Amino acid sequence: MKFSVTVTLKKDVLDPQGKVVHNTLTNLGIDNLKSIRQGKFFEIEVNETDQNKAEDKVKEMCEKLLVNLIIEDFQINKLQ
Amino acid sequence: MKFSVTVTLKKDVLDPQGKVVHNTLTNLGIDNLKSIRQGKFFEIEVNETDQNKAEDKVKEMCEKLLVNLIIEDFQINKLQ
Repeated sequence: MKFSVTVTLKKDVLDPQGKVVHNTLTNLGIDNLKSIRQGKFFEIEVNETDQNKAEDKVKEMCEKLLVNLIIEDFQINKLQ
Repeated sequence: MKFSVTVTLKKDVLDPQGKVVHNTLTNLGIDNLKSIRQGKFFEIEVNETDQNKAEDKVKEMCEKLLVNLIIEDFQINKLQ
């Protein structure tokens, strides 16, 4: 069973990397850009046929390693 | 207008970072993990009311800076 996980910085957390990307895009001549924030993306495949169990597994991975819960939020989506 | 962009490595491209995450998760005692691949995620807000124009803008950003088209694929989704 395949899942995607997107990890984003919480709203009030500064995103210096996104800021640099924003400036660079502006310097490249792209206008009309209002904001850009960068996050992480994972594609995770689990050997588990039960969807709830599989999702719990992915959640456990996020909480144990992939996500810094103090400054980041995450969202799990089933693929296909 | 708000878009999300996910950038993933092409299928045949090795993902050493994902491999490290995989090993670490296994060491943390998580079983049943079949594969994990890491990518990038962007949340982009554009000052543009026409959806087609806005999407073209985001596509241009991807091609100019955000994505290495030789080894990466990208997908644009409208948010909300």
